Order: sequence, then C-alpha cells, then structure tokens
Amino acid sequence: VRHFTIELEELNQHLMQMGGLVASAIHLAVGSLIEQNRELAEEVIRQEPTINRMEKEIDGIATRLLALRQPVACDLRRLTVALKITTDLERIGDFAFDVAQRSLNLMKQPAVKPMTDIPKIAALVQSMLLKCLNAFVNSDADVAHSVLLADDEVHQFRDGIQAELKDAMQRDPAVASAAIDLLFIARDLERTGDHATNIAEDVIFLAKGIDVRHGAQQPEEA
Amino acid sequence: VRHFTIELEELNQHLMQMGGLVASAIHLAVGSLIEQNRELAEEVIRQEPTINRMEKEIDGIATRLLALRQPVACDLRRLTVALKITTDLERIGDFAFDVAQRSLNLMKQPAVKPMTDIPKIAALVQSMLLKCLNAFVNSDADVAHSVLLADDEVHQFRDGIQAELKDAMQRDPAVASAAIDLLFIARDLERTGDHATNIAEDVIFLAKGIDVRHGAQQPEEA
Repeated sequence: VRHFTIELEELNQHLMQMGGLVASAIHLAVGSLIEQNRELAEEVIRQEPTINRMEKEIDGIATRLLALRQPVACDLRRLTVALKITTDLERIGDFAFDVAQRSLNLMKQPAVKPMTDIPKIAALVQSMLLKCLNAFVNSDADVAHSVLLADDEVHQFRDGIQAELKDAMQRDPAVASAAIDLLFIARDLERTGDHATNIAEDVIFLAKGIDVRHGAQQPEEA
Repeated sequence: VRHFTIELEELNQHLMQMGGLVASAIHLAVGSLIEQNRELAEEVIRQEPTINRMEKEIDGIATRLLALRQPVACDLRRLTVALKITTDLERIGDFAFDVAQRSLNLMKQPAVKPMTDIPKIAALVQSMLLKCLNAFVNSDADVAHSVLLADDEVHQFRDGIQAELKDAMQRDPAVASAAIDLLFIARDLERTGDHATNIAEDVIFLAKGIDVRHGAQQPEEA
C-alpha cells in the first residue's frame, strides 16, 4: 500500500500538468490572435480533448482518494479544492478553444484597427494564471492574494476594449463581424481572469483554512 | 448524533433551494428583458449575494459530511457531485445577474428590431434548467438525458441570433450598443444551457455511476 502523502503529491503533479497545459493553451491562442498564426490556433484546438480528459482523470483520482483514505482537515481540503480547481482549469481551456476558433475566423475578415488593448488584457490574465498555479504548488497565500488584486484592472481593460470596439463598429459597419469576434475574445480573457481568481481563492482557503470567496473572511469549518 | 441519511436529505434540500433561486433569477432576468421591466431586473441583482452565500454554505456542509461521515460509493458520489453542482448553479446565477444588468442598460437605448430568437433560447434553457434540477431530486437519468439532447438546439439558436444581430448592426450602426448587449445576453443564455448540461451529466453519473462528460461512457471507479 502506497503512502497517502505520495498519492497526494501525485495528484498535485497531475493538477500542475493540467494547469501547465491550460496556461499554454491560453498563451498559444493569444499568440495566434496577435500574430495571425493559424498553426498556433490549430494546436489549441488539437489539445482541447486532452484537457477535458485530464479533468476527468484528476476528478477520478481525488474521488478515489476521498473514498479509500477518508482524509480529514488539511488533506480533505486539498482533495475538495482539487475538484474545484479542475473545473476552473477545464473552463479556461474552453476559453482558449473559443479564442483560437475566433482567431482563425478573424484571419478571413477585414481587420479592425486599432487592435485595442486585447494584447494587454491577455498578458495580464496570463500572468494571473501562472501566479495562481505557482501559488497552488507552493501553498503560497501571498502570491494568491496578488492575483485577487489584478481583478479590477482586468475589468477596466474589458470595459475600455468594449467601448473601443463599439465605436469602431459605428464608424465602419463593415468591421462588425470582426469586432464581434474581438468582443467575445475580450470576454473570454476577462473570464479567464475570473477563474484564475477562483483558483487563487481556493489556494488561500487551502493555505489558511479560510474561505475568501465573495468577500467573506470567516474561518471555515472542515 | 443525527442519522447520515437525514443529513444527506438536508443537503439535497439546500441544493434544491439554491437551484430554485437560480432558476427564478434566470426567469426574472429574461422577464425583465422581454417586458422591459426594471423591477424584475433589480430583484435579480438583489438576490445575487444570497446565491453566492448558498454556494458557500452547501460546500461547507458537503465538506463537513465528507470529513465526519467518511462516506463511500453512492454517498461519496452524492457529496462530490454536490460540490460540482453548486459551482454550476453559482455560475448560472452570474449569468442571470449579467442579463439583468444588460436588460437595465437596454432600457436606456434605442431598441433593436426585430428582437431575434432570444425569447426562444431563453425558454429552452429555462426548461433545461428545471429538468436537470428535477432529474437531480429524483435521481432520474432519463430526464437528465433529455437535457443533453437540447444542447444542439441551444447552439443553433445562438448562431442564428448572432448572425441576425450582426446584420442589424451593419444596417444601422446606431443600434451597435444595444446589439452588443443582446449578443452577450444570448451568450449568457447559451452558457446557462451548458451548465444545465453539466448538471445533467452529474445526475447521470450519480444515478448510474458512469461519467458521460466529454462524450465518454466508461464506468467510473469510486
């Protein structure tokens, strides 16, 4: 019988592998958009089934460990948080997929100029995603907190991009189709930031045993 | 010491209560949009913190039962599925909130005519949501399956609505702002359908012990 600590460590490694794949999918999808590179987008589309499969595998491992090891306290939290984090990562994978598809679509259409702050919001949410994954590996609540602080900036970027695209459409209705794709891409990236925030909140819960979701700060029973 | 069966029954009742509140939020948000009724939208905005609080409460109960009762097999599945379903319900609550805010916004702008198939997609996803909640209460895999079948139709409605709004913007750039709100509302409703589908898949997993997410059909270890 293997030691439970080793099994938890393996679960962590699976989660990090899934996190790495999802972060790479967002990176490739944004790269495809900015460089108008078909191959990067196609790579994201190819990787999507792998991300979905990993979610199921990790959920299966966490559920099995819950049943076999009947953990309490911190170990129990680690398993229930793993179940939450895979959901967030899988959703971010969906956003990367959507950005990649819209990026391919945009290559067939007249470009919207200027390209707005999409590269900036993309860089910001990528940094949030990498930080929350690192915070998870190191159970580092401080790094996780720094992710929460970036959330306002993401929403400001999103509002600015939306206003700019609306103006572009009103000036030139011919760009409407491309502008719609860019609007949804900005939304996908904003949502990616939201899910990175969820993961950061879970890491804080894990590290400190408190639930900071929706602004509450009470200690959690477990 | 209370019996575990009673505790699980209470957890179910909490989940149904949260489900009912979320279904009502979607119903009110759509009503506010279609009837241009400010009060309905404001009611949705008022209810949002309650939905968020319920997610945390139910997660807390499920985590506590995992720790205290150390359940196996079907009872374990019921608890891990509860953790997944609260995430889906909370997200649907966010979509209702977004629809309500955009509905208020739309009341200040020149209307887009025709109003597209938004009432139809709204009716469809509301029916999916009620069905998956009923399937959950009754552990009814057949009803849950019927939810999965509606997913294609939701995506067809979404594509049609998006095409129609793009045309409307191109014909009359003055409606761009309203059309953008309607585009995001259609997306919110599509996503609501996606999360109802997630819940239906969880119910099938619960009822049959198989994981149908992402098209797989293998029996699940637990």
